[in-house]
Amino acid sequence: MKIHPECYPCLLRQAYSTLKLVTQDEALQERVLKEVMGKLAQYQGSDPPPKVSRLVYWTIARATGVEDPYRDKKKECNRVALELYPHLKEMVNRAPDPLFTAVKVAIVGNIIDFGVGRSFELESLEAIEKLELVINHYPIFREEYEEARTILYIGDNAGEVVFDRVLIEEFQGKEVYFAVRSGPIINDVTLEDAHEAGIDQVAYVLESGSWAPGTLLDEASSQFKELFMEADMIISKGQGNFETLDDAPRDLFFLLRAKCDVVAQLLGVEIGDTLLIKKGATPYR
Amino acid sequence: MKIHPECYPCLLRQAYSTLKLVTQDEALQERVLKEVMGKLAQYQGSDPPPKVSRLVYWTIARATGVEDPYRDKKKECNRVALELYPHLKEMVNRAPDPLFTAVKVAIVGNIIDFGVGRSFELESLEAIEKLELVINHYPIFREEYEEARTILYIGDNAGEVVFDRVLIEEFQGKEVYFAVRSGPIINDVTLEDAHEAGIDQVAYVLESGSWAPGTLLDEASSQFKELFMEADMIISKGQGNFETLDDAPRDLFFLLRAKCDVVAQLLGVEIGDTLLIKKGATPYR
Repeated sequence: MKIHPECYPCLLRQAYSTLKLVTQDEALQERVLKEVMGKLAQYQGSDPPPKVSRLVYWTIARATGVEDPYRDKKKECNRVALELYPHLKEMVNRAPDPLFTAVKVAIVGNIIDFGVGRSFELESLEAIEKLELVINHYPIFREEYEEARTILYIGDNAGEVVFDRVLIEEFQGKEVYFAVRSGPIINDVTLEDAHEAGIDQVAYVLESGSWAPGTLLDEASSQFKELFMEADMIISKGQGNFETLDDAPRDLFFLLRAKCDVVAQLLGVEIGDTLLIKKGATPYR
Repeated sequence: MKIHPECYPCLLRQAYSTLKLVTQDEALQERVLKEVMGKLAQYQGSDPPPKVSRLVYWTIARATGVEDPYRDKKKECNRVALELYPHLKEMVNRAPDPLFTAVKVAIVGNIIDFGVGRSFELESLEAIEKLELVINHYPIFREEYEEARTILYIGDNAGEVVFDRVLIEEFQGKEVYFAVRSGPIINDVTLEDAHEAGIDQVAYVLESGSWAPGTLLDEASSQFKELFMEADMIISKGQGNFETLDDAPRDLFFLLRAKCDVVAQLLGVEIGDTLLIKKGATPYR
């Protein structure tokens, strides 16, 4: 999808939130915000929001010298999620359809996202089982899953990656690839996070080649692109991946929460709705 | 007060809200947002937020050709407020201290403000009498009021101006001047609104000389400046006037709701708190 006018105020709000993490120096905050606005004012194009968003984050990193402002938050998210891990496993194990419950676990993991500015609130674990998917293409998901030999799973955020692991562990006899960002950006999952979450024990972990809070195919590594075109099934987590892959040249499954008006309106849902969408299955609902 | 880093994302959000009122053309919205960001990126200074804010609104007006985007909303606000007027009068008339109740009426009128993006919600009229002022300098207000012969009342928004009229009608035997903005800006009160509200029947109405969502003394007319320095008592309504007059060279009373974090933190209150503050009476609470 292309950037929408509403994205600009949101990007500037994100920039300010990030600057508050990086420095208490208000003169510096103001200077960098102006630099960000200058860059956005100059920006000509109709790229997906994550491509524009990284302009913002890279500007902040260069101007302040802090390359990974969310590093501590990410570690904390991974730690909290790993504490929940045994409880998530137990829930999945006693579910009537463990795969479906694991799918819901993975979607709930997507609420951990600092970029969009909502506060960290882990729904009580009991709520996961009752979670209603507002768009629910699980029957198609299940069918394609049964047939698939290779699965490419495109990760989203730190913390969330532990929830992804719970889903991946339900994949029986599949060859699973787990893609992460190629550089630190907001709280997005990197190699380091994937290792902290133990994903490397259950999947082949690779960088996508894309250094953005999403997956920019035109910048992806050849390894990733090959996997992307040839995997039997692709699972894309989170809104950033949706924003960059909604017009990708193949079918895939999006697992996400709608976190802003622009995406919610595009999908005809409400902010906060949890969704399992087969791309190309139109209409979405 | 000076502009704060947090004001920039807020200004851009306001710009987008205003643009949505003016045009449904998303390409135009984006172009104007970029023009606004370019202007803000170039802005060098430490003026009060309303002086920077008008840069935003003037840019939108010039770029879209719509000089007064809130005109219809303002008319609607005046109309709704005039419907409430008899009920407000009745409430004041049966109050034990009509002046104090009228002060609270005037403050409640300040919730009518589209600029800061909260939705129009008129508290039930009954709630006005129970309204708690979180900073309450009414005893000093009452004392100075008794002594005053001339009162300068600096208006804030359309709609709200009807509530101001209720307070002004409680002023017995005073010479009252009511100042409005010198040009249309957001939903701020202009000559036209003051006349619609009937303020000209109870006070001398004048333009301040300042075309901004606040009162910029260095741009005020000589008539206004003279009144400002010589009136026995000044009542300043709303946050925009507070932001521009909090360091004015004389005492005055601020009646306002804190509508954003920056002002709330400056005053040590919460967003939404209603306040009657004597400038210079330190500490504020």
